[in-house]
Amino acid sequence: MTELLEPNTRPAHTDPGTRVDSWLASFEDAMSRGDTAAASALFAPTSFWRDLVAFTWNLTTVENPDGVRDLLDAVLPDLAPHGFSTLEPPTETDGVIEAWIAFETATGRGKGHLRLTDEGAWTLLTSLRELKGHEEPMSERRPRGTEHGVVRGRRSWKEQREAEAAALGRTEQPYVVVIGGGQGGIALGARLRQLDVPAVVLDKHDRPGDQWRSRYKSLCLHDPVWYDHLPYLPFPQNWPVFAPKDKIADWLEMYTTVMEVPYWSRSTVTSARWDEAAEHWDVVVDRDGESLLLHPRELVFATGMSGKPNLPDLPGMDVFTGDQHHSSQHPGPEAYRGKRAVVVGSNNSAHDICGALWENDADVTMVQRSSTHVVKSDSLMDIGLGGLYSERAVASGMTTEKADLTFASLPYRIMHEFQVPLYEQMAERDADFYARLEKAGFRHDWGDDGSGLFMKYLRRGSGYYIDVGAAELVADGEVKLAHGQVSHLTEDSVVLEDGTVLPADLVVYATGYGSMNGWVADIIDQATADRVGKVWGLGSATTKDPGPWEGEQRNMWKPTQVPHLWFHGGNLHQSRHYSLYLALQLKARHAGIDTPVYGLQDVHHTA
Amino acid sequence: MTELLEPNTRPAHTDPGTRVDSWLASFEDAMSRGDTAAASALFAPTSFWRDLVAFTWNLTTVENPDGVRDLLDAVLPDLAPHGFSTLEPPTETDGVIEAWIAFETATGRGKGHLRLTDEGAWTLLTSLRELKGHEEPMSERRPRGTEHGVVRGRRSWKEQREAEAAALGRTEQPYVVVIGGGQGGIALGARLRQLDVPAVVLDKHDRPGDQWRSRYKSLCLHDPVWYDHLPYLPFPQNWPVFAPKDKIADWLEMYTTVMEVPYWSRSTVTSARWDEAAEHWDVVVDRDGESLLLHPRELVFATGMSGKPNLPDLPGMDVFTGDQHHSSQHPGPEAYRGKRAVVVGSNNSAHDICGALWENDADVTMVQRSSTHVVKSDSLMDIGLGGLYSERAVASGMTTEKADLTFASLPYRIMHEFQVPLYEQMAERDADFYARLEKAGFRHDWGDDGSGLFMKYLRRGSGYYIDVGAAELVADGEVKLAHGQVSHLTEDSVVLEDGTVLPADLVVYATGYGSMNGWVADIIDQATADRVGKVWGLGSATTKDPGPWEGEQRNMWKPTQVPHLWFHGGNLHQSRHYSLYLALQLKARHAGIDTPVYGLQDVHHTA
Repeated sequence: MTELLEPNTRPAHTDPGTRVDSWLASFEDAMSRGDTAAASALFAPTSFWRDLVAFTWNLTTVENPDGVRDLLDAVLPDLAPHGFSTLEPPTETDGVIEAWIAFETATGRGKGHLRLTDEGAWTLLTSLRELKGHEEPMSERRPRGTEHGVVRGRRSWKEQREAEAAALGRTEQPYVVVIGGGQGGIALGARLRQLDVPAVVLDKHDRPGDQWRSRYKSLCLHDPVWYDHLPYLPFPQNWPVFAPKDKIADWLEMYTTVMEVPYWSRSTVTSARWDEAAEHWDVVVDRDGESLLLHPRELVFATGMSGKPNLPDLPGMDVFTGDQHHSSQHPGPEAYRGKRAVVVGSNNSAHDICGALWENDADVTMVQRSSTHVVKSDSLMDIGLGGLYSERAVASGMTTEKADLTFASLPYRIMHEFQVPLYEQMAERDADFYARLEKAGFRHDWGDDGSGLFMKYLRRGSGYYIDVGAAELVADGEVKLAHGQVSHLTEDSVVLEDGTVLPADLVVYATGYGSMNGWVADIIDQATADRVGKVWGLGSATTKDPGPWEGEQRNMWKPTQVPHLWFHGGNLHQSRHYSLYLALQLKARHAGIDTPVYGLQDVHHTA
Repeated sequence: MTELLEPNTRPAHTDPGTRVDSWLASFEDAMSRGDTAAASALFAPTSFWRDLVAFTWNLTTVENPDGVRDLLDAVLPDLAPHGFSTLEPPTETDGVIEAWIAFETATGRGKGHLRLTDEGAWTLLTSLRELKGHEEPMSERRPRGTEHGVVRGRRSWKEQREAEAAALGRTEQPYVVVIGGGQGGIALGARLRQLDVPAVVLDKHDRPGDQWRSRYKSLCLHDPVWYDHLPYLPFPQNWPVFAPKDKIADWLEMYTTVMEVPYWSRSTVTSARWDEAAEHWDVVVDRDGESLLLHPRELVFATGMSGKPNLPDLPGMDVFTGDQHHSSQHPGPEAYRGKRAVVVGSNNSAHDICGALWENDADVTMVQRSSTHVVKSDSLMDIGLGGLYSERAVASGMTTEKADLTFASLPYRIMHEFQVPLYEQMAERDADFYARLEKAGFRHDWGDDGSGLFMKYLRRGSGYYIDVGAAELVADGEVKLAHGQVSHLTEDSVVLEDGTVLPADLVVYATGYGSMNGWVADIIDQATADRVGKVWGLGSATTKDPGPWEGEQRNMWKPTQVPHLWFHGGNLHQSRHYSLYLALQLKARHAGIDTPVYGLQDVHHTA
């Protein structure tokens, strides 16, 4: 019995629920007393607290008891966190207890996730779900749709919508302008609509979905359906695993209508500047030929996480007589049947374009400039995503929200440790494939630390190909392979630095994209772009993601060094999940709620 | 102990699960031996077996052991029913055990519902869910969306869709033609698409949803969202309780696109006739000015369960100088501000139109020709639908499929018994309202047997108003009330049979609709319309629903006396639920599965 009463010991079989309840009670109690030392002592020596807006009005990860204490010292007592409880019975695996939790603060309601070991909290996720008094009109709060009773001068839903559309940007100013109406802008627009924040989403194309329609014809999503749902309206059960680009385009178009997203097509922002006196932006918009001046308080760039196309400036580009364009401008293979195509680059777009050109009987050469991570789509689906995003996961009761929060619960600092073993499995499963690829001379890698595709995506947003077939063409020699940098172009060829001459009727520059703050330089000015700094990446000190460590993705979905300027985007998963946090931050500001930001990031890189 | 061994006794506390398992085993065993006497003896003396396609290739209800035996004698042994099991633990309330069951037949898989008493089975529902070998591509069977690998000459999803659309009706004939592209035609079109049955849905309007857009502007759905979901793609959580007509129109339009329903807008069927030699229909379609001849094997009328508008033929209609039109043609109240409006009729449309005219400052008189059932929308929602279709039901785990099957499990013969107490509750809850309505001289009723709105809907599809406010105007005298039949019109008035003169600038005939076989007379011929007979109604021998008893709704969603001719429609609930059974019947025929129909209905009325 004595042993059991020793400090730091516990009955061997205390059930996980009791232990979590006890931890939560201690945490809440310490916070309520303002005892940040006691609260932080509940965390393990190596530990991570990731907060998504609930405690910090920021996306922040703090580390270890010191970090926890620093955070709490800053946010208590005003935040008044309370009501911590479990949402379902916690589970224990290999000495780690996992719990889904709910909590409240003075202003909002949150959900979170806790991993508890004998040392204390190992990981804690806290995420804001809704603001008190600003709950979304959904489910039991859904709108009536009609006003029962008789009302003289009643305006129908359609008349109200038309009046609102006519007033927007003329007699009524949007509080938020979202530049870019792809999946990111549309998802954010839907959330802002739900939260009753006056907003407008601006897009240059003719109609929603054209961002996808205008891409090369064989393009399908590389991520599977379970990973791709938009907020509020999930794809139906018959939706294809990998949606063809025109089908996802139709979905985005109907989603914009159904969710009543205020959306201006054929609209280009020609300039934006912050009016310090008026405390709003002056945003000049060309709307289908008409110039309009908007005055939003908040400005969101949702222009594509990939940023502006990197078109190389090569000697001889002006004398080359064939077609040449960046991969983002590639019209598809139809016009190049029987022609000689040189594709510069070896990542996703390069492979997709090479495959489509080959299918249309072009003579195709891929120019590999640096090593690429290649992973087979099926293996990625089964091993990389299957536990959270698959039919199997759905059948086991996994919801999209729970999958998103589970993923979010893994701190970026240690995420690669969870990823490495998955890619080791893939390497083993597809060993034959990799051997053939190597034999063909293709240089492939698994990321600087073997952590594979998703870490590459988070760190640099490039450097990989999800193989849906084109890598086999490279392995077979059907698509020819060249190596090295391009020296220059001639009238009818691409010449590499080693002197190799690649005759060409078409050159596609699959040379990637710059940082999103390049759009800021274009639309606002270079000084503001530099002030906001590089967008995307974790500061992992790996290739194309220079340190220092940031803890979160740079500048995405959270306050930047430029007040009232925000970035939104990413893949469909990120557009869905992080649009909630960005929308809540914007809503809080619109509602006049105090939003003291903890841990505003410094700028270490300008691009 | 002796007592317990007596036949027909059971241990007092045998749990419901054991009793159901035992009943199902006995039922299956008797059927497998072809012992229809034993199988039918498992039913209570008063009992009902409702089959939706699974056993009978029909929608049929048989009654009592005799009926059960007749059915089984006809369908065994070919049907080979087997694999009966419970889907979840049965429950017992007031001596009635309820169980959800699964089963198979030689050709399909089914679900059903059983109510068991000490006397045996009281009600049994059997419904076909899918055909073996023709399972829908959903969830784990969903399409891939892209063909991985490289394929020379690959056609994209869009190219395939375009090629299919170009061929339809020209080089490729649809197996099914659906006339009418409202909610019914669209839901059926979606199911047929899923089941890979070549079909086309024809509609006269410019685009899907125009059936709603063209109605008067204040119209909202009278049924709540939980009751209104379409197949496959439920409304999102933020959908209004009562969708405004233009919003539901937008939804139908996007649904048609997203579900890839083959849909021809601006298309009118000018004639159809069965070609006995070729064994197909010759359907002449005017498609946006072009005449096309289609050759479907199966022809579905989805032209609206209400059938053709009943426009009365009154003396003086030709001399009346104001506006006059059927309620279905009413453009809305805007043009009638300050004008004198006479609305003939006192059901749903009459009330809605009177209300909207009053809101727009018209002087409105309603002419009540016969008694109307009025029920307040909130009371109907809470008491009538709440258990199955409400946020409360969703929160308690009720799914749309389960709600639909629960509703379907109540045989029409006894359904009114379940309905009467609900309307007694409503009468009590809204006693003040009814007193005021009566005081204003409005004649209201609860149906011939007090069973209220839904039975009126099933029996005659008319005779009621779901009050969303206009009945209050009548009670208050804001909308004036007149009684009796119209004698004739003068240049500027409506004259009733009792001599009352109602000055009028506008006359709206809210005089209802005929039977759907009126469309058959127009498009095919009167002989065929007579041969198929009256559509809708139960044969309840109540007002406007003459006997004899039919057991199911006449001619809806099931084989008719005219081979290859079908009817589909109803409210959104029915369009959703019964489109499955109609689609499975059509699919089975397309797949060449033998579909012997048990219990084909006789025709007792021609209109």
